[in-house]
Amino acid sequence: MDEHLLIQKYFSNIGSAYLAEHNVEVSIGDDASVTSANINSQYINSIDTSILGVHFLESMTPEEIAYRACVVALSDLAACGAKPCWYSISLTFPEFNEDWLSEFSSGLNRFSEEYKIPLIGGDTTKGYLSITVQVMGQVDSGKAILRSNAKENELILVSGKIGNAFLGLKQLEENSTSKNYQDFYKSPKARIELGMELVGLATSAIDISDGLLQDLNLLCESSNIGAEIFADQIPTSSKKILLELINSGDDYELCFTAKESDIDSIQDISRKLHIPITVIGRTNSSQELVLFDESKKRMEIGSGYKHF
Amino acid sequence: MDEHLLIQKYFSNIGSAYLAEHNVEVSIGDDASVTSANINSQYINSIDTSILGVHFLESMTPEEIAYRACVVALSDLAACGAKPCWYSISLTFPEFNEDWLSEFSSGLNRFSEEYKIPLIGGDTTKGYLSITVQVMGQVDSGKAILRSNAKENELILVSGKIGNAFLGLKQLEENSTSKNYQDFYKSPKARIELGMELVGLATSAIDISDGLLQDLNLLCESSNIGAEIFADQIPTSSKKILLELINSGDDYELCFTAKESDIDSIQDISRKLHIPITVIGRTNSSQELVLFDESKKRMEIGSGYKHF
Repeated sequence: MDEHLLIQKYFSNIGSAYLAEHNVEVSIGDDASVTSANINSQYINSIDTSILGVHFLESMTPEEIAYRACVVALSDLAACGAKPCWYSISLTFPEFNEDWLSEFSSGLNRFSEEYKIPLIGGDTTKGYLSITVQVMGQVDSGKAILRSNAKENELILVSGKIGNAFLGLKQLEENSTSKNYQDFYKSPKARIELGMELVGLATSAIDISDGLLQDLNLLCESSNIGAEIFADQIPTSSKKILLELINSGDDYELCFTAKESDIDSIQDISRKLHIPITVIGRTNSSQELVLFDESKKRMEIGSGYKHF
Repeated sequence: MDEHLLIQKYFSNIGSAYLAEHNVEVSIGDDASVTSANINSQYINSIDTSILGVHFLESMTPEEIAYRACVVALSDLAACGAKPCWYSISLTFPEFNEDWLSEFSSGLNRFSEEYKIPLIGGDTTKGYLSITVQVMGQVDSGKAILRSNAKENELILVSGKIGNAFLGLKQLEENSTSKNYQDFYKSPKARIELGMELVGLATSAIDISDGLLQDLNLLCESSNIGAEIFADQIPTSSKKILLELINSGDDYELCFTAKESDIDSIQDISRKLHIPITVIGRTNSSQELVLFDESKKRMEIGSGYKHF
């Protein structure tokens, strides 16, 4: 099958119900896609590659692989408070297999329906299984939440439970009969609704893909601040392997900063969206990230996910 | 080195002189990049993956690999008549090597300077060498050249010489002492200036990446027309292996259609840009692509690049 027919068969009409509302004029099938923009908007772009054996497991289904690769990319938009507009995908796969492609396509459909965005462009190449997803979102002009805008003496908060994806990954790797955490790894959620609600409230944000402490450290560096974090306040499903959990990555929860005076509004959002949000510490002017245990003794921080 | 420092060191400030003119507000270093849009513009997006051994040779330098991967992606914008705005890149590479990354970064710089666009986002992962480049361009609203808009009884034209990249690839693969065609493969040009000049003149266009006849066939299918092409009019550097040359791909020249009454304007553009433009045939209502030899006998068409 030639690339053109392959794209037509498995990648056209994914999320096509959402083309018009996102001003997509030409979608899959031309040299490139054509969209028009809204005035008074900022556009947020991100690109993310998922590779077999590094970012997802061989045991996952093509449906799960497609869905997860897209959510992981979209998570960067959540951290900016953006509303997703559309996405494009470059898929590298080793051999032509109708069943595999058809299932992969189902995963894209699930993603498109859940986040209500169309797939508007693609490329396919032959090689080791790898998926690059590019996502575009928008926010009102000047409203994008950046990771560089935190100030000292603000609250540091996280959504969800940290380390659940790691627990799921372990269950998957060990082929465990316990499956209660597996979906946190296989089917993460991009915290889009939360990010959008936090526009105007969060002073900075980052998504936790490489481990809470490592990502928070990036936020601190970008904002030129320091932070005090309290280990016993970090929401995890187990306290026994706390450091492992908070450095494990793959959670795609949001870590963000906010003024103390906004805590009530943030708790309202938490209730409204049924997403736990927890204060885990406070920013300061120290330029250093410090983790304390329950007796306020400094703890070793460890390290998060290493790409190389 | 962690991913953050790696991106800072090798991927920040590439083409940064062009950030402001393309309304880029946040570039590399945040979760995502932030841009704003012009009203009365259409935005053109494309994504393209280049893989070692499939889209480029192991013998090429990291500088050449980076440059080529970007040009190849940008070529899709040329076919739409778009002015490039910015690009993002997802790089997968097998091991951390400062020299390699530094040279790769030089190739991105050469590309950014030549096309005057900034790199605004990136992702790095460990794995088999592969580069995915996403490009964004703009045209005035309603002016994007599509591949679906050709009508019957129009001229079919191509830029440049077809098959030169194939001749260059052969010289490279054979480690030939003749190097006169190698740059056509290693350093292709995206026909951006030509595409921009053709806005309002070309009724449809496609870039020739998979072979002239195969790509022209896609244009015909998209436009629901047929075409007659005359082999002896196709500009090639050799007539001996004509079919091989015109089916070889990798040229990144433009194939486009235009009204006969616009031929003088098109020839003016050809002279102004010093790019040969040649009429190679004519569209018709037949739904079929037919190739004629010099005695107007039908020739076998052969086939272009197969992705799978």
